Amino acid sequence: MLTRINKNNTQELAAFIAGRNQEISSDVLIQVSEIIEDVKENKDEACRRYTKQFDGVDQKTFRVTEKELDEAIQQCDPDFCKAMQKAAQNIIDFHQAQRQKGYRLQKEMGIYLGQRVLPLESVGIYVPGGRAQYPSSVLMNAIPAHVAGVKRIVMVTPPDKQGKIHPNIAYAAKIAGVSEIYKIGGAQAIAALAYGTQSIQSVDKITGPGNIYVAAAKKMVYGKVDIDMIAGPSEILVIADEEANPEYVAADLISQAEHDPMASAILVTTSQALLEKVNAALQRQSAVLPKKDIIEASLRDYGKSVVCDTIEECIDISNAVAPEHLELMNKEPEVYLDLVKNAGSVFMGYYTCESIGDYFGGTNHVLPTSGTARFSSALGVDAFIKKSSYLHYTKEAIEAYGKEIIVMAKEEQLQGHANAARIRMEDKQ
Amino acid sequence: MLTRINKNNTQELAAFIAGRNQEISSDVLIQVSEIIEDVKENKDEACRRYTKQFDGVDQKTFRVTEKELDEAIQQCDPDFCKAMQKAAQNIIDFHQAQRQKGYRLQKEMGIYLGQRVLPLESVGIYVPGGRAQYPSSVLMNAIPAHVAGVKRIVMVTPPDKQGKIHPNIAYAAKIAGVSEIYKIGGAQAIAALAYGTQSIQSVDKITGPGNIYVAAAKKMVYGKVDIDMIAGPSEILVIADEEANPEYVAADLISQAEHDPMASAILVTTSQALLEKVNAALQRQSAVLPKKDIIEASLRDYGKSVVCDTIEECIDISNAVAPEHLELMNKEPEVYLDLVKNAGSVFMGYYTCESIGDYFGGTNHVLPTSGTARFSSALGVDAFIKKSSYLHYTKEAIEAYGKEIIVMAKEEQLQGHANAARIRMEDKQ
Repeated sequence: MLTRINKNNTQELAAFIAGRNQEISSDVLIQVSEIIEDVKENKDEACRRYTKQFDGVDQKTFRVTEKELDEAIQQCDPDFCKAMQKAAQNIIDFHQAQRQKGYRLQKEMGIYLGQRVLPLESVGIYVPGGRAQYPSSVLMNAIPAHVAGVKRIVMVTPPDKQGKIHPNIAYAAKIAGVSEIYKIGGAQAIAALAYGTQSIQSVDKITGPGNIYVAAAKKMVYGKVDIDMIAGPSEILVIADEEANPEYVAADLISQAEHDPMASAILVTTSQALLEKVNAALQRQSAVLPKKDIIEASLRDYGKSVVCDTIEECIDISNAVAPEHLELMNKEPEVYLDLVKNAGSVFMGYYTCESIGDYFGGTNHVLPTSGTARFSSALGVDAFIKKSSYLHYTKEAIEAYGKEIIVMAKEEQLQGHANAARIRMEDKQ
Repeated sequence: MLTRINKNNTQELAAFIAGRNQEISSDVLIQVSEIIEDVKENKDEACRRYTKQFDGVDQKTFRVTEKELDEAIQQCDPDFCKAMQKAAQNIIDFHQAQRQKGYRLQKEMGIYLGQRVLPLESVGIYVPGGRAQYPSSVLMNAIPAHVAGVKRIVMVTPPDKQGKIHPNIAYAAKIAGVSEIYKIGGAQAIAALAYGTQSIQSVDKITGPGNIYVAAAKKMVYGKVDIDMIAGPSEILVIADEEANPEYVAADLISQAEHDPMASAILVTTSQALLEKVNAALQRQSAVLPKKDIIEASLRDYGKSVVCDTIEECIDISNAVAPEHLELMNKEPEVYLDLVKNAGSVFMGYYTCESIGDYFGGTNHVLPTSGTARFSSALGVDAFIKKSSYLHYTKEAIEAYGKEIIVMAKEEQLQGHANAARIRMEDKQ
């Protein structure tokens, strides 16, 4: 049953959702910084040692060959492959619309200035291994990089006990435009991507989810390379009116709750009657699901409900929470979309369950968590480009505007700045 | 004299430039975290106490009134005001071209999806006080926020010994679209912006330069709010051919060196003869400048030169360094711009000194330092927007594509995700 929150306690609810982030313990930080230093110094040898220690595999080389990739892919379920292909195409379509162009302004006296949009030269994508594997996450990270024009897209993923790559991960990499794959995981993989080894060339940015060691390593190498946002526990906020089907609402709340005991599912509704039906459906549906224990823990500790008078009031609450996922399960969701100010991704109407977006619809599933949708965005093409400005002045132009530059520089007590303009103005050549 | 580097030691040069970042000492971190906790708990009272302690002023209120603002502005040099107005207009023109629009894709069976571009709701801009004051930096931070459509732009700046705001800073705020000004500085100002006090409402993002305490505080509140990149020491790389005027080259290298003893000025040239003339000019020009000591320390410790055979080779070196500022003081700079992959801002030709861009040209002067231009961009409108995606499926669409979602969810062992799709497909209402 979802814990009931009074609609006037919105700020407390927002703080509760934002406050779930896991602290990284100093034990983990120390261990990870030792691994990073070791990989910086001993490169491939250190990577091999850690892979033996943590993954139980002694590998001479990390790179997945074409042959190994093809053999892995042979083992995939053909229906899964077909679904992945369609999903990949939808994701490509959505992200292609995000491509940006540079611009140039031409002004008086031969002055021009502008901005170029350039892809990053190389990107590393971390893909977790172990029992749970997420091929959808390979698509969501690699496709935007590929669409952005990144030439070198490097995937790292831990080997299984037999030293193999998971077939589904291999297939996802193949269709998403990954250019190099290495079987290495954990903090050692992040260190190798950031600093380079004999066999793995360093990259400019690292994205992708991982466990607490991977997250700690990403934080530590940030600055040397760029990283994506470190995701906190996931959340969904469902706004539902009295016509929403309580079975759908419950199913969607559960699909969030099954990720993690710290995931949060929040129902904000105009209907007390619906809330009661949803609570009953949550119990019934979760009882038969494999991840029953996780779901029950998540709903018990982080499941919340709020009853409001109007959909506008529901949206005010959502804007304060700034949820990663927002479902608008009300009539005319399009009318209300404009009121939504803070949400990673919005799922519109009664039939758009979050899992469509998680896998298939085309929008990105890497979204800002824990209230950070107030100021940040889904992963997309923007994450894999940089913008570089340029400016051109002629002799005539610096003679015309040099005095403005000199007066501003002098007020800031930077005479050297003034001098660079003056020297060009006074030059009578 | 610039230390000569062999052109084959490019990687060492790049690592040297990237490695200048100042570590924040644990003393500073502890002090700053105490201030933040104090402001979180005691709000205005703590802010007043720290302002008394650090700025020597006991203020009952922090907000700068309209009257106070107008009085301050009266004291500005009219020539400075005219220059600032022109600069502001150039900055507005350049940044307006960065505005982005959302998009929407309409697909089969009533499916649609898209992305909305939304301004952040509120932004805080830190402006340092003390003897050096940088009104240009107010323009560079506030104008992009204003162009992005941010409604609430809050400036914080420490009061002077008389409890006043600096006239030039006041004027810059007035013309840059700042909506609230508070006389408060240091870590306490950052804490107030992040957590809010009785008199200062919290914001979604904090930008702007500051001393080591401000930088530490920004790092600590990151996550609660967004922050801009924490700038390292500044650098310029000048590419010059044999026709470049050595006096201009020297003046531009000096304009970087005068910022900070850790600033780096690098000359990469195809002409040994030019290098010798530049070294002589550096000595001559810096001898008569007020910041002579800083310039000499910077050039001695961080000034470098490289001689290459071709301009292409010079650009390869620049791409490895990824400088904050790059000057192309060679013939036909436009032909070579395409080869430049990593640079915050590029100054084209013999007459475009960096100080035009620092103050007046319109491009932003808040740029990625220490090699981070490999993966990041100048401050601009992008820093003050967020993107929110949306997705709509109809009953017909989920019936058509539900099986793809189910097969993908099952492979990831997320039955709850599959269930949310299945329940809608099987519903025969």
